[in-house]
Amino acid sequence: MVTLDFAKSADGLLPAIAQDWQTGEVLMLAYINEESWKRTLDSGVATYWSRSRQKFWVKGESSGNIQRIKEILVDCDLDTVVFRVEQVGGAACHEGYRSCFFRRVDDKGGLAVVGERVFDPKAVYGV
Amino acid sequence: MVTLDFAKSADGLLPAIAQDWQTGEVLMLAYINEESWKRTLDSGVATYWSRSRQKFWVKGESSGNIQRIKEILVDCDLDTVVFRVEQVGGAACHEGYRSCFFRRVDDKGGLAVVGERVFDPKAVYGV
Repeated sequence: MVTLDFAKSADGLLPAIAQDWQTGEVLMLAYINEESWKRTLDSGVATYWSRSRQKFWVKGESSGNIQRIKEILVDCDLDTVVFRVEQVGGAACHEGYRSCFFRRVDDKGGLAVVGERVFDPKAVYGV
Repeated sequence: MVTLDFAKSADGLLPAIAQDWQTGEVLMLAYINEESWKRTLDSGVATYWSRSRQKFWVKGESSGNIQRIKEILVDCDLDTVVFRVEQVGGAACHEGYRSCFFRRVDDKGGLAVVGERVFDPKAVYGV
């Protein structure tokens, strides 16, 4: 198993960038600890550590929108990874967009929605 | 100015992903604090906070390989950004590769170099 530098961060978490393996679109960023790194490698499905819920988080476990790992890239410092994934269901964002990065900074210093909405979050999560 | 949720992290730093605006290649990940976010927006050049040196870091200030901002994407939680950049000099990585993510996890659980080396770091940094 590739050893990452988890000691680099005080909380033992490193950022993992999920990228669509075909389009190159950056879908989301979440965090991994050593065990979620191991689980991701073993299962072939992106498995993060949820900072808000303080538990392992198989992305898509509730919505069905899991991320199948196609390739993993590791950076020069061994403290960040890119999961190149097949985004099942087409949406990574809990707000129903393909990507969590569905807004851009516009010319007036505000935010403009540029991303594509794939599902209605109320219909999926019921909230 | 778009207000990010810097209070989300204990150290006031948020991750910024630099992505080639034309190819979609993820080039690097570094951190920003509120002032480096402001400086990036004002200058149009990616400006991070160096955790190792504890100072502002205009990416490329020593190598000349600055990152001109073409577009900035903001995530749903306002705690991560994507800088879509023109990577001047063609290399984001201090090891001379186009991207810091120049290695992939191979089938045997090791690392294989897949990135393109653009310059010899010894020639640029003299170390």
